[in-house]
Amino acid sequence: MEQRHFDKELSDLKQKLLLMAAKVETLINQAIEALKRKDDALARGVMAIDKEVDRMEIEIEEQAVALIALHQPAAADLRFLIGAIKINNDLERIGDHGVNIAQCALKLSGLPDVKPLIDIPRMAQLAVAMLKDSLDGFVRSDPSKSKQVCERDDQVDDIKDQIFRVLLTYMMEKPETIGRAMELILVSRNLERIADLATNICEETIYIAEARIIKHHAEEG
Amino acid sequence: MEQRHFDKELSDLKQKLLLMAAKVETLINQAIEALKRKDDALARGVMAIDKEVDRMEIEIEEQAVALIALHQPAAADLRFLIGAIKINNDLERIGDHGVNIAQCALKLSGLPDVKPLIDIPRMAQLAVAMLKDSLDGFVRSDPSKSKQVCERDDQVDDIKDQIFRVLLTYMMEKPETIGRAMELILVSRNLERIADLATNICEETIYIAEARIIKHHAEEG
Repeated sequence: MEQRHFDKELSDLKQKLLLMAAKVETLINQAIEALKRKDDALARGVMAIDKEVDRMEIEIEEQAVALIALHQPAAADLRFLIGAIKINNDLERIGDHGVNIAQCALKLSGLPDVKPLIDIPRMAQLAVAMLKDSLDGFVRSDPSKSKQVCERDDQVDDIKDQIFRVLLTYMMEKPETIGRAMELILVSRNLERIADLATNICEETIYIAEARIIKHHAEEG
Repeated sequence: MEQRHFDKELSDLKQKLLLMAAKVETLINQAIEALKRKDDALARGVMAIDKEVDRMEIEIEEQAVALIALHQPAAADLRFLIGAIKINNDLERIGDHGVNIAQCALKLSGLPDVKPLIDIPRMAQLAVAMLKDSLDGFVRSDPSKSKQVCERDDQVDDIKDQIFRVLLTYMMEKPETIGRAMELILVSRNLERIADLATNICEETIYIAEARIIKHHAEEG
C-alpha cells in the first residue's frame, strides 16, 4: 500500500472514531434526559443507539487491524493504530455505562423523586465534555489538551462524593428512599467510570506522544 | 525475524500474561482477606501489588508491539497479538478494581460489622476462578472453555443481586448501617466488574477463534 493511500485510510479511521465518540455522547445525553424526564421510550432508545455503537466498534477494529496487516506501518503509526484499537474499545465500554444509566432511569420512572436532580446532570455534562475533548486530543495527537482533560477528573470525583453525601442524608432520614437513592448513586458511579475511561483515552494519547518524543530524541542522539 | 524465534517470543509473551493474571488473582484475594480480617497492612499491600501489575502491563504491551513491528505477523498471529494487548489492558483494570476493594476494606476496618461476610467471599471466589479460566482459554486458544466461563457470569450477577437485597434490609432496619452497607455494595460492584472483564477476555478469545475459522473456510472454499 502506498503512503498516500495509507494516509487516506488513517484519516478515514480518525473520522470514524470521532463519529463513534459523537454517537456515544448522544447515547449518554439521552440516558440522562430519560432519567430527568422519566421517559421510558427515550431510555429504551438508548439501547438501540448502543447496538449501533457495538457495530461501529467491530468495524473500526477490523479496519485498524487490516491497516496494520496490509501496510505494516512504521513504529509511530503502529503505536497510533494500536492506541486507536484500545480507545475504540473504551468508547464501546462508555456506551455500556450509558446503557446502565438508562436501566436505572427505567427503574425510577414510575416512582416519586427522592430529590430534584441537580448534580447528576452537571456531572454528566462534565463527563461528556471530557469524553469529547479526550477524542479530539487523540485524533489531533495533542498531548497538552489531553493533560488538561486528565486534570478535570478531580472535579467529577468531587461531584460524585457530594452526590453520595447528599443522598446519604435522605436515606438516613427516610429509609423508604433507600432503593431509589441507591439507583441515583449507581448513576453517579457510571458517570465516574465514563470520566475514568475518558482519562484513560488521554493517558493513551500522552503515552503515544511521549514514546514518539523519546524515540525522536534517541534517533537524533 | 525467523519463525522459530517468533514462536519463542510468542510463547514467552503468553507466559508473561499468565504470570500477570496470577499476580492479579493474588491481588484480589488479598483485598478480600483484608476485608474479612480488617487488616490494614494487608489492604495497603494490595496497592504495592498493583504497582507491579502496572509495570507488567507496560512491559507486555511493549513486547507485543515490538513483535508486530519486527515480525509483521500473518493475520492469525496479528489478531492474537492485538487480543493479547486488549486482554493485558483488561488485567490492569481488574487490578484497579482490586485496589477499590482494598480501599473499602480500609474504610471499614475500624467499624463494627454490618453482618457476617458470606456472599462476598463466595462472589470473589467465582470471579477469580472466571479470571483464571478466561486467561487459560485465551493462552490455549480454547474457545469452548471460554464459552463455559461466559455462562458463569450469570451466577455472579445473581449473588450481586442477593448481596444488594440482604444489605437493603439491614439499611432499612438500621439507618446507621447505611454508610457501611454502601461500602459492601461497592465491593460487590467491583467484583461484578471483575467478572465482566473476565467475560470480555473470553469474548475476545471466541472472536479470534471464530475469525480464524471463518478465514480458514474462506481459504478452503
